Amino acid sequence: MPKNAFYAQSGGVTAVINASACGLIETARQHPDKIGKVYAGRNGIIGALTEDLIDTSQESSEDIAALRHTPAGAFGSCRFKLKGLDQSKAEYERLIEVFKAHDIGYFFYNGGGDSQDTSHKVSQIGEKLGYPIICVGVPKTVDNDLPITDNCPGFGSVAKYIAVSIREASFDVASMAKTSTKVFVMEVMGRHAGWIAAAGGLAAEKPGDGPHIILFPETTFDQAKFLAKVKETVEKYDYCSIVVSEGAKNAEGKFLAEAGGKDAFGHAQLGGVAPVIAQLVKDHLGYKYHWAVADYLQRAARHIASKTDVEQAYALGKAAVELALAGKNAVMPIVVRISDNPYKWEIGHANLADVANVEKKMPGEYITADGFGITDACRRYLQPLILGEDYPPYENGLPKYVQLKNVAVAKKLTTTFELKK
Amino acid sequence: MPKNAFYAQSGGVTAVINASACGLIETARQHPDKIGKVYAGRNGIIGALTEDLIDTSQESSEDIAALRHTPAGAFGSCRFKLKGLDQSKAEYERLIEVFKAHDIGYFFYNGGGDSQDTSHKVSQIGEKLGYPIICVGVPKTVDNDLPITDNCPGFGSVAKYIAVSIREASFDVASMAKTSTKVFVMEVMGRHAGWIAAAGGLAAEKPGDGPHIILFPETTFDQAKFLAKVKETVEKYDYCSIVVSEGAKNAEGKFLAEAGGKDAFGHAQLGGVAPVIAQLVKDHLGYKYHWAVADYLQRAARHIASKTDVEQAYALGKAAVELALAGKNAVMPIVVRISDNPYKWEIGHANLADVANVEKKMPGEYITADGFGITDACRRYLQPLILGEDYPPYENGLPKYVQLKNVAVAKKLTTTFELKK
Repeated sequence: MPKNAFYAQSGGVTAVINASACGLIETARQHPDKIGKVYAGRNGIIGALTEDLIDTSQESSEDIAALRHTPAGAFGSCRFKLKGLDQSKAEYERLIEVFKAHDIGYFFYNGGGDSQDTSHKVSQIGEKLGYPIICVGVPKTVDNDLPITDNCPGFGSVAKYIAVSIREASFDVASMAKTSTKVFVMEVMGRHAGWIAAAGGLAAEKPGDGPHIILFPETTFDQAKFLAKVKETVEKYDYCSIVVSEGAKNAEGKFLAEAGGKDAFGHAQLGGVAPVIAQLVKDHLGYKYHWAVADYLQRAARHIASKTDVEQAYALGKAAVELALAGKNAVMPIVVRISDNPYKWEIGHANLADVANVEKKMPGEYITADGFGITDACRRYLQPLILGEDYPPYENGLPKYVQLKNVAVAKKLTTTFELKK
Repeated sequence: MPKNAFYAQSGGVTAVINASACGLIETARQHPDKIGKVYAGRNGIIGALTEDLIDTSQESSEDIAALRHTPAGAFGSCRFKLKGLDQSKAEYERLIEVFKAHDIGYFFYNGGGDSQDTSHKVSQIGEKLGYPIICVGVPKTVDNDLPITDNCPGFGSVAKYIAVSIREASFDVASMAKTSTKVFVMEVMGRHAGWIAAAGGLAAEKPGDGPHIILFPETTFDQAKFLAKVKETVEKYDYCSIVVSEGAKNAEGKFLAEAGGKDAFGHAQLGGVAPVIAQLVKDHLGYKYHWAVADYLQRAARHIASKTDVEQAYALGKAAVELALAGKNAVMPIVVRISDNPYKWEIGHANLADVANVEKKMPGEYITADGFGITDACRRYLQPLILGEDYPPYENGLPKYVQLKNVAVAKKLTTTFELKK
């Protein structure tokens, strides 16, 4: 009897994490001689710890195929980090108990930096705790901060959403600037790195195009310099469109979002950074403003996903199974860039030991000298990642996303497990 | 020599107002014997008052065709309302001076309620001020509040954007709810009417689907009832997704957005209503939240425009010219609904006298008894308006929107005109 596989989604979900699930499950189904059933963790690793497994073999091939165009996490995700084997021994022993009970020989973990650290630890339970398992990580994160891989699935689609949205909003503001809104501020995700903010810069292809200013977490916010740049831009182009990262900080290293006011109840933070920046412009320059906070809309926007991103997400899910079948433990498939233009890539793999706890920062040379834009080097890196459209099917004017049956696997253990907060 | 035409865009722009411009200009070009050149007002009616006209005949037919898939106002718009003929006689006389100088015999005004009031007044300058002109309004407004017409171009595309976005964000939150975000709040436009908020309801096609709660401007916000509904929803479905109109008000008739806090400088309003609602949930129920404010992104989102909306916008621009050629003054083409399902419509026309100063409110029977959702009647009305996709062309991963040359017509007058604020 072939061993079963466990698959879980971890951390913040994306527009294409289900495309990886699709690639993984479809590929596993092609090898019934080597992989039994694919069990998904309900709400990620928590599903394994609580023996709450989903039997994906109950889903039709049509529904599994539809995962490719469905955003978010079809099996539920979670924010739950396993500590080291020494500190969290009870949890690893519980994993082994559940894996044993369900004859699981493959562990696939689809997530970002923290999750690949967990994958790395799980990959050691064979050697350290005597339960042989093949553990393969599947990369995913809109933050684009995993090392070695060219980029992270999920990022390209957020990048495309942000670039498309700021282009559209910039056109809007340009039309209105004569008598109304002159400054538009769009807040984007990325608390630790400016990858997503940088993607907004792709919308500006020639002088005068918005966005005119990008505020990165990597650059200390200089109020006087910023206001001068806004003024100069409005005087030159009649309007100014701005992308601000939620991670933008002042000279004291404090998030600008928190430099705002208190709400009616005295709480320190009501809103995001966009309204803070907009108000600053209004107070000092008097321009009429509008602001937007895309929040989850950006990472869930499967309707405008990057085709490149979808293809890579699928290919990485597929490759994870192929690596497992080749007997590789403690690895993660990656995207290897062969050329920028035309963009060519292939799938390779990295060792989880080299991935775990390494954060890919945005290179300093990707930000222009004045700190407000992206360089050509940055554009060369980012441009291919947003290429191509991959529209979902529509019904009644709305994208037809699949909701799986998510049938539970019958429990085999009489023991339960209490999750620590 | 045939008379020239004047065309202007007015008020807040939309994803499809340029599709109306496209229909109008393309149709006018087919009748060179009856219409000379189409001059567009740079920044709307201000262009007429300041003799700042754009010669659209300088644009290639390819660029004019590309207006159909380009959002925002290609010639610039403005917020500038003409008062009555008695109060603003100088302005009407100036219009006549400019129209005379440029041999303008047709006036097309593309806008919402205020703008059609202006169209109506301009339509009277023949009779009252002795300058014969044919004046035809072209409807446009995301607010969907013009009377008589089935709907207003621009609205269907915002409706589609909101329904798609809240569906995607709801899928996202559902995945995260086990250990993270349980409540998502999305703020939408519509200060006076809940049409746009109602459109979010289209995403909920079966029990449990988000959005679970819609907060309308038409319904007084009842905090206790709202919080009870959020709690009930989270207990039943693990998460709760909420659409809130920027126009939502409390029992004192005050905007909820203004019931928030003060910023660092003591200003009354920093953010929108979404963070206020989210914070309320956090304070009273303790659920982790996320919120988004779509703002201009929703009305500029040509990438996800409704095909129905694009087709109607184009057809109305075309019909405006046909009405003018038929000698109809003081009218506005409208959409006439023939059937809901399948949706059938045709173009008719209304008298500007019946359109001016009449606001179409959302019928009470479109909101469910509990005040938090839309009824089947509302769904029957809204559903057809978001049908179909009409994707723009892409280049480098981004929508290829046209920027016209916007060549100025040589001034013929030596007089200038000072705009009153």
